Amino acid sequence: MKALVLEEKLRLSLREIELPETLGPHDVRIQIRTVGICGSDLHYFQHGAIGPFVVRAPMVLGHEAAGVVLEIGPGVTDLAPGDRVCMEPGIPNSLGRATRLGRYNLDPNVRFWATPPVHGCLRPTVVHPAAFTFRLPSNVTFAEGAMVEPLAVGLHAATQARIAPGDVAVVMGAGPIGILTALAALAGGCSRIFLSDVLAPKLGLAAGLGPITPINAREENLVAVVREATGDWGADLVFDATGHPSALAQGVAALRPGGAIVLIGMPGQPVPFDVVAAQVKEARIETIFRYAHVFPRALALMRSGKIDVRPLITERFEFDDGIAAFGCAAQAKPTTIKIQIDL
Amino acid sequence: MKALVLEEKLRLSLREIELPETLGPHDVRIQIRTVGICGSDLHYFQHGAIGPFVVRAPMVLGHEAAGVVLEIGPGVTDLAPGDRVCMEPGIPNSLGRATRLGRYNLDPNVRFWATPPVHGCLRPTVVHPAAFTFRLPSNVTFAEGAMVEPLAVGLHAATQARIAPGDVAVVMGAGPIGILTALAALAGGCSRIFLSDVLAPKLGLAAGLGPITPINAREENLVAVVREATGDWGADLVFDATGHPSALAQGVAALRPGGAIVLIGMPGQPVPFDVVAAQVKEARIETIFRYAHVFPRALALMRSGKIDVRPLITERFEFDDGIAAFGCAAQAKPTTIKIQIDL
Amino acid sequence: MKALVLEEKLRLSLREIELPETLGPHDVRIQIRTVGICGSDLHYFQHGAIGPFVVRAPMVLGHEAAGVVLEIGPGVTDLAPGDRVCMEPGIPNSLGRATRLGRYNLDPNVRFWATPPVHGCLRPTVVHPAAFTFRLPSNVTFAEGAMVEPLAVGLHAATQARIAPGDVAVVMGAGPIGILTALAALAGGCSRIFLSDVLAPKLGLAAGLGPITPINAREENLVAVVREATGDWGADLVFDATGHPSALAQGVAALRPGGAIVLIGMPGQPVPFDVVAAQVKEARIETIFRYAHVFPRALALMRSGKIDVRPLITERFEFDDGIAAFGCAAQAKPTTIKIQIDL
Amino acid sequence: MKALVLEEKLRLSLREIELPETLGPHDVRIQIRTVGICGSDLHYFQHGAIGPFVVRAPMVLGHEAAGVVLEIGPGVTDLAPGDRVCMEPGIPNSLGRATRLGRYNLDPNVRFWATPPVHGCLRPTVVHPAAFTFRLPSNVTFAEGAMVEPLAVGLHAATQARIAPGDVAVVMGAGPIGILTALAALAGGCSRIFLSDVLAPKLGLAAGLGPITPINAREENLVAVVREATGDWGADLVFDATGHPSALAQGVAALRPGGAIVLIGMPGQPVPFDVVAAQVKEARIETIFRYAHVFPRALALMRSGKIDVRPLITERFEFDDGIAAFGCAAQAKPTTIKIQIDL
Repeated sequence: MKALVLEEKLRLSLREIELPETLGPHDVRIQIRTVGICGSDLHYFQHGAIGPFVVRAPMVLGHEAAGVVLEIGPGVTDLAPGDRVCMEPGIPNSLGRATRLGRYNLDPNVRFWATPPVHGCLRPTVVHPAAFTFRLPSNVTFAEGAMVEPLAVGLHAATQARIAPGDVAVVMGAGPIGILTALAALAGGCSRIFLSDVLAPKLGLAAGLGPITPINAREENLVAVVREATGDWGADLVFDATGHPSALAQGVAALRPGGAIVLIGMPGQPVPFDVVAAQVKEARIETIFRYAHVFPRALALMRSGKIDVRPLITERFEFDDGIAAFGCAAQAKPTTIKIQIDL
Repeated sequence: MKALVLEEKLRLSLREIELPETLGPHDVRIQIRTVGICGSDLHYFQHGAIGPFVVRAPMVLGHEAAGVVLEIGPGVTDLAPGDRVCMEPGIPNSLGRATRLGRYNLDPNVRFWATPPVHGCLRPTVVHPAAFTFRLPSNVTFAEGAMVEPLAVGLHAATQARIAPGDVAVVMGAGPIGILTALAALAGGCSRIFLSDVLAPKLGLAAGLGPITPINAREENLVAVVREATGDWGADLVFDATGHPSALAQGVAALRPGGAIVLIGMPGQPVPFDVVAAQVKEARIETIFRYAHVFPRALALMRSGKIDVRPLITERFEFDDGIAAFGCAAQAKPTTIKIQIDL
Repeated sequence: MKALVLEEKLRLSLREIELPETLGPHDVRIQIRTVGICGSDLHYFQHGAIGPFVVRAPMVLGHEAAGVVLEIGPGVTDLAPGDRVCMEPGIPNSLGRATRLGRYNLDPNVRFWATPPVHGCLRPTVVHPAAFTFRLPSNVTFAEGAMVEPLAVGLHAATQARIAPGDVAVVMGAGPIGILTALAALAGGCSRIFLSDVLAPKLGLAAGLGPITPINAREENLVAVVREATGDWGADLVFDATGHPSALAQGVAALRPGGAIVLIGMPGQPVPFDVVAAQVKEARIETIFRYAHVFPRALALMRSGKIDVRPLITERFEFDDGIAAFGCAAQAKPTTIKIQIDL
Repeated sequence: MKALVLEEKLRLSLREIELPETLGPHDVRIQIRTVGICGSDLHYFQHGAIGPFVVRAPMVLGHEAAGVVLEIGPGVTDLAPGDRVCMEPGIPNSLGRATRLGRYNLDPNVRFWATPPVHGCLRPTVVHPAAFTFRLPSNVTFAEGAMVEPLAVGLHAATQARIAPGDVAVVMGAGPIGILTALAALAGGCSRIFLSDVLAPKLGLAAGLGPITPINAREENLVAVVREATGDWGADLVFDATGHPSALAQGVAALRPGGAIVLIGMPGQPVPFDVVAAQVKEARIETIFRYAHVFPRALALMRSGKIDVRPLITERFEFDDGIAAFGCAAQAKPTTIKIQIDL
């Protein structure tokens, strides 16, 4: 089949590749319709590796996908050919200890699309376990379906935060994950979000999506704004989607006594942590990794209109222009949030 | 001052009554502007008692109120004359054990407006602790401010439920508390509400307020509808706002494995509880009593527009027509949700 | 192989039965060494059914077992022949929705030993999934290993209770489950247990096992004793291991504001539930069904000596006397707690 | 009255000081009988300050105390003269926002004994709120009563950890707080503790107090030991009582997927935090500050014998030798855990 292949760092091909996939009893075969480009896809393209994961052989990119079921295995009962679906890109070992506890995202043996050496989904069809394939509500398009994966990260963060209804939250970072986290936190119970970034166009877009107060970190002091708006009490929750070395300290400073910080961004190096500053507030710090069990929840919130991801899809490309799509991502405009490829 | 006084069962007066109130250092004096009529006000009017609470002497009614600060005690720092506010009607003993644990609603010595022998707030002014007086956001009217008290019940229910973002919930009962619980559950993270009642007009009103699926319990089988809509899995959460003897059994039947039921309605008699039916789902059952710490959260959600209570205010009366307002409440139309009195 | 077979109600045989079991890749074959008799085994013997589960064909009894690994499947890495082990008797469908969430005990398709039509383990060997087979610490005997199953019920109850260190608990019922729940609650953080029953010998035995205050329900008023001992505040937690119709009401009365009740016992009929009495305390009611993920925890607590189940094993029989063991169980003395059969 | 006064850094006096204290309606007057020396007392003595808290005027030291009630205010109902008691040393502002939420330890206006400018309790009598004064069980001595304060730190840590019964925990640091945390974690539900330190005598003492595995950090690799003992899974919980810059990284490495770390020790500088290492395990990090609501729990656990603090009291001094006690603390032997002064 013809796929978008990362041959090696900085070299993409749209070419034939042999990807024999047999359909197991609990699998479905899916025709891919839309795939979003994630920061990790771009990072593999630009650097050939992410930390210990190195691209040593040609690898198909892409892990944010929606499509149509073509064929089902004999043991599949809740999906049928023709169903419009989106997919979780990581398949854990079902016998792993973390998996059995219900925390399958922590299984060290997970096979995740477009994480070397596992091929991604920028190709016409994939075979996937039915248990990780989810039917799209009728009001959710393929483009929106392909946004469920990044939304799941934000929704998982919102879930681990244990939001109490009406909580005030800070989200640091107005890239796709930051904005989706803001939307997830609002849908998940927050009354208001303070969203900080240094790029005004992204903040401007996000500010129109709900009770989101944009804070331009170049011009305003996040902590001061939050403390002023909360009667010097602080935010109930802080989500960091930047991974910036100063985010943790800023988050602790913005937090109310007894509040919680959720670390989504992945800093490249250890960051300084002022433990005592956190202790005097008994800050709880949650760290998250991908997501578990949230795809159905994301779809339910999109179905009811509580989350609308469409404004975040800023550029779309045809599959034949897939390499151009990566070029666009590599030189992203300040207004770019999410680039998708249609098959 | 002139107040709406329940002289005895079925006998209301709008008359002068001496209510000397001295302003303590941490108190504020408030001019009352709007008071809602609660089911408990009506019950005292019609029956002269609620359970062990018997009206043995003339008592001013009313506990859902908003107004304007007239005067503050010398120790009050966060309110000022002219502030538009709403008030929590129950004042706990600050030294009580439950209060100190942060669960002041469970303090047995709480003094609650319009619960005998404590006078309510259907009168021109009250003195109230600043700690239980909350400033209204500029976009929240007195009428909406007087809705915070019943909304607080629903919001407390939503909080105790520990909603995970995207949860599907059932709410039984489409009176004011039921609808406000539905709105609170949606604002608090639910993706969808199945709301059941026997009165079509109330369901019709509620169905326009968000992703709320009305279920006319006379015509449809709630459990069957929920199971069908959830792929035979069941609702994540069930809220009962009816107190009906069959609500618990129905709630257990509608629940998913590992779900939770929140009991808000207060049945007059013990209800039958099929423990085994709950056990096979490991149902968690939360019981709630009034609310604690949720007024600021309710106001934050009204401020951001996530909760709009205005459609629920169906009738309004002038203070001089206060007795007629109770007459209206006693013979409520199917379209009546909340009746308020303006001072 | 020779097994203890319930031919039909009230008729047991120790006889040859063909039980062909093939060893799958992730299975182990186990030589059974000790099996405890559970109330459910006895109930099937005496009544031929438990609720909807009816013995329609000869069925091997027994589900509380320990033994030695004889053989392992090719995919088994963490067990080896010769390992001393105990086993969880219920095997869920690994693809079921509850299973994937980590709550496999709620899977409706679970296959549970000695629950019709699934054969139990009163036989020389069984084949079992390695994932539900647990190595015994060196200081834990087969007899103790066969106690892990009933202990797991108590430990799951203690886990769902969410004990805060130092909590005071009530346990109703001093049968095997009640006493094991008391031991689990103490090991799990409680400072003190009030244990009620009507049989003085069981209470006497239990009172020697830790800070357990026995309450003879025929002579003392549980609620009065608890309230007196807690300065009229009430117990933090109540565990019911009786299923008695009055247990819930008594539990609510004994509870402190904000406390929790865990319902372990399974009443034969719906029980009366005074919702308002629970509401004024905001009682949380947890219902539990068997257990999940607690076998390793039970073994860890037995390994460290925090739980010692040996005093509860009051009678032991040889396998050839297995029918007599059931006779003993059917006419249990007041001093009998747990009867075991050694193979 | 005669008190042990820190005149300034490194200069202690046992001298008369005027400390006029009037008994409020909800206060009690207490004759002090035993006071333990805390690391903070020693730090003020040696350095004249802890962070922003600087001793600018003579200050009485001591905040770990037990004594006898001499006199009660007219509003006190649950204490009487002659009662043997211990006291929480921090008195929050009862109107503060954190206090009202039940988290009074986070109130920024707390007045805490022996934290400048508030005098401590190394003196014959103190006046204290009854709400923060707790009656000792009859089997708890004054010496043990004076250990409740440091035990409360460990017990609060154990509470915030949310131990599940049978959890395996690591405690770093075998000083008083570390060992008390280990005892609290065991009493609170852990099955086993790995306790690390560099001082063999402290480890030797601790190893005799329960299922505590000592790890000499100079000779053994904590992470390797824990991973080996847990089948390469890791510890459920890690408590750091050292504040050492490497503790967090080591804790993350020793943790199982989904585990939690509680930071008790207070590093003098920001510590490096490898966020990604925590994320791949979704580590939860709790920070704690002193304690709230745990004195009664500590006493309940001492009453039942689940926690025995007596082995930790290694040196005792008469009040007249109080200055020598501080000298002993300043040059502590490796076997010293807790030094107390009797009045």
